[in-house]
Amino acid sequence: MPPQRATLLQVAQRAGVSRSTASFVLAGRHVDMRISEDARQRVLRAAQELDYRPNLMARSLRTKVTKTIALVSDTLASDPYAGRAIHGALAAAIAHGHLLFIGETEGDAVVEEKLISDFLDRQVDAFVYASMFTRHVRVPKLLKGHPVVLLNCLTRGATPAYHSVIPDEAAAGRSAAETIVGHGHRDGIHLVGTTARHVFAGRERLAGIREGLAAAGTRLSGTIDCDWWPDSAYEAVTGALAAGPAPKALICLNDRVALGAYQALREAGLDIPGDVSVLSFDDSELAAWLRPQLTSISLPHYQLGWRAVELLLDPAGHARPEIWRLPMPVRDRASIGTP
Amino acid sequence: MPPQRATLLQVAQRAGVSRSTASFVLAGRHVDMRISEDARQRVLRAAQELDYRPNLMARSLRTKVTKTIALVSDTLASDPYAGRAIHGALAAAIAHGHLLFIGETEGDAVVEEKLISDFLDRQVDAFVYASMFTRHVRVPKLLKGHPVVLLNCLTRGATPAYHSVIPDEAAAGRSAAETIVGHGHRDGIHLVGTTARHVFAGRERLAGIREGLAAAGTRLSGTIDCDWWPDSAYEAVTGALAAGPAPKALICLNDRVALGAYQALREAGLDIPGDVSVLSFDDSELAAWLRPQLTSISLPHYQLGWRAVELLLDPAGHARPEIWRLPMPVRDRASIGTP
Repeated sequence: MPPQRATLLQVAQRAGVSRSTASFVLAGRHVDMRISEDARQRVLRAAQELDYRPNLMARSLRTKVTKTIALVSDTLASDPYAGRAIHGALAAAIAHGHLLFIGETEGDAVVEEKLISDFLDRQVDAFVYASMFTRHVRVPKLLKGHPVVLLNCLTRGATPAYHSVIPDEAAAGRSAAETIVGHGHRDGIHLVGTTARHVFAGRERLAGIREGLAAAGTRLSGTIDCDWWPDSAYEAVTGALAAGPAPKALICLNDRVALGAYQALREAGLDIPGDVSVLSFDDSELAAWLRPQLTSISLPHYQLGWRAVELLLDPAGHARPEIWRLPMPVRDRASIGTP
Repeated sequence: MPPQRATLLQVAQRAGVSRSTASFVLAGRHVDMRISEDARQRVLRAAQELDYRPNLMARSLRTKVTKTIALVSDTLASDPYAGRAIHGALAAAIAHGHLLFIGETEGDAVVEEKLISDFLDRQVDAFVYASMFTRHVRVPKLLKGHPVVLLNCLTRGATPAYHSVIPDEAAAGRSAAETIVGHGHRDGIHLVGTTARHVFAGRERLAGIREGLAAAGTRLSGTIDCDWWPDSAYEAVTGALAAGPAPKALICLNDRVALGAYQALREAGLDIPGDVSVLSFDDSELAAWLRPQLTSISLPHYQLGWRAVELLLDPAGHARPEIWRLPMPVRDRASIGTP
């Protein structure tokens, strides 16, 4: 059993004052309640000696504020990105004196409703509603009327109903194009990875890449279609190399795709970046582990988590919901050469 | 502002009963309080129509149970293992009708004390005290008297003060030796990675490997000393290959070390597993992405998290604290051949 907590009455008795006096002192109301400095000092000393801690839950019944927030996500699985977003959200919550609950719905509406309902039962002050892949969502009805910020997701419709924090994928696509073009590449630039329309990141990155290349007066020579996984990329790039002339530069839609591309290029006896340049998105740990180290465009998940909680707890000056697109910086490494 | 919650009084009024009657019905005490089935049905219907939700925080002031637990960890950084342990803990908490707070101390005793104190203020029922690297810890004094289970860490001393859930690293070392020996290897078996005595996993794995090889009448031919990172392993293995005859089998202390070893072996023109077999620990995503796919021994982080919460919330029959060593299964892939 937990040790008994010291009560307010015990503090008052030790200090030789009434319960109300002790309560006013601990609430910082000694001035307006005209409590003597001597009594105040005795109360503070007694509270310290007894290790008195105010019962926040009892207080929250009066103030309706528990200083807790909940992060409700579709998946928290083993993905390191999820970990980083949670980490950023947690750091911002602590910085604002709040504690963080986490919950996972696995995309199941029934689980989600139960979970949110359980958080509401515990008087959670505010919610971060998160997705681990950038996408459009419907915010559950239960959250209506509560403070909510969307993390890595957004609602459809012309005007956002909530603050949304997402990565600026289109700008990242333009950065990718500019980086490749900046090294002198104009021809033989291929995209690796499927850009199915329902995948937000792929669609926006592709649009940015096309725009960036067009601004430099050039265009993609082709797309090597594959899933965003090493095996699939390895097979697709191996096939593309067998079918035609080797590309000069590959823009891979994530680091796992780049790993598969590296494996295929190496087996074909092609040097990176001597023969083929490779650029990628995500800037996962993998990017720094490959040889040569991979130039990749960062997904700012820690920042997404941090900013979402900032907007939730300190929305000063941002009354009207907006979509916040956070920058994705290029991490220059060693995988891009001159043509 | 959140929508107004229906009160117990409103439920009672709608059902045409007293507040106490409604309260007894909703607490399931209709039998001992001799409440008519008709009244009971009216209360349940009213509660449903008004979407009445009991105020768990008010109830917890009476019962002293909030059905929340906190996971306090030294680090939650971007490590995917941390994510998996949290995921397992979360799943078990939800399965037991509890919600999960998370907190990170960054190994700072002052931060830790503040954090635990904040959780206690919110009447958290129980704690998982976690480390992301298996190690000995001192459990903070503030947690004394509260239900605590240690996740991936343990206390020093002959009898454990708390349940501890850790990976069975010594058994994993024996499995590593048996796997290598089982493929016919007896000579030229090298360990890759430093086994500094203060690193629990390294020390225990080494002891298990030695034991397993000794049982088969053989021993390690040498140790290639390096940090547990790709770069360091790449350099150390490259140096070892230049210095002497090529090893026949490498036991790498984690998958990142194995990645560096792969890179060094490939550059030296050695085939895996034709010339050199490679085995590793962790079974991270990387293991399945390498070519050939890497045989690796799993770190059961999801299970650690799950079991820790199980022991916390459902300790039936385990009154006396124990150290629970969870098995680390071998994931056979394609990196081990015959000598």
